[in-house]
Amino acid sequence: MLRVLGVDPGLTRCGLGAVEGRPGTPLSLVAVGVVRTPADDDIGARLVAVETGIERWLDDVRPDAVAVERVFAQHNVRTVMGTAQAAAVAILCAARRGLPVALHTPSEVKAAITGSGTADKKQVGLMVTRLLRLDAMPKPADAADALALAICHLWRGAAQNRLADALARAKGKP
Amino acid sequence: MLRVLGVDPGLTRCGLGAVEGRPGTPLSLVAVGVVRTPADDDIGARLVAVETGIERWLDDVRPDAVAVERVFAQHNVRTVMGTAQAAAVAILCAARRGLPVALHTPSEVKAAITGSGTADKKQVGLMVTRLLRLDAMPKPADAADALALAICHLWRGAAQNRLADALARAKGKP
Repeated sequence: MLRVLGVDPGLTRCGLGAVEGRPGTPLSLVAVGVVRTPADDDIGARLVAVETGIERWLDDVRPDAVAVERVFAQHNVRTVMGTAQAAAVAILCAARRGLPVALHTPSEVKAAITGSGTADKKQVGLMVTRLLRLDAMPKPADAADALALAICHLWRGAAQNRLADALARAKGKP
Repeated sequence: MLRVLGVDPGLTRCGLGAVEGRPGTPLSLVAVGVVRTPADDDIGARLVAVETGIERWLDDVRPDAVAVERVFAQHNVRTVMGTAQAAAVAILCAARRGLPVALHTPSEVKAAITGSGTADKKQVGLMVTRLLRLDAMPKPADAADALALAICHLWRGAAQNRLADALARAKGKP
């Protein structure tokens, strides 16, 4: 069993979602929520609050790996700096504990969860709800996105391991 | 006397420079250098190394305030994410200690040091060398830029305080 904490980074709302599973068995929800920081606080106070929140999640959830959304400079210029800085705090908190950190792009996550790299937020939310057998879609969207990141990481990791195993077997053949 | 640590954020080279002074007296250099992280390390290891380096500087220099270059998404897209993430770590380290953190744009720094917001790196380096009465220009450029940030912060803070005092005096008048 692998337990993955997904982080949809942000200063106003940082989505956090932990999922447990292994290839070929149903996934299960461990925890989901958001860390919020007030928009009128200064950047220093906000980053400290994000750090405190993520540390608490890591203490509670004890994940085996952390998956963080990869932030691109091309995206919404108005918010991208805050997103990149919240992502930095998440990566720092995980790496400080020696946890493996993976970055996945939004289109990698969408493709893993829905089969389409251009799926919309609602479609991702519906698939997360279905895959984790939840009664309702996790809200806000940042929380659902964090779960999608965790699922994407579980599946991509599993696929990469199967590929590595297959290559190792092929190499081992006479 | 105010002691300011300037941080020119970056993952490959993070410039650090501490300056001490007060308005109307010559400035003095406290320390200058860079924290480097290997480009082939993963982002988690690099952010942890930046944090460790900045923590050591804060322990050694014991500044009253920290000035960090404000990063814009419009700049060099290839490196801006790493710069924003290194800046986040610097802001986080300072705010965690309760130190005031100020962000200054590159043009604010250039204007404060040289009188022109569009001055080049060499001109900034020359003025830093002159203002701190150094024998040679601090190298690499990131180290000189960190000192320029610290000087900018000392002077802008002083100017803002003088303005606030003048306004307070004007208000106090009958």
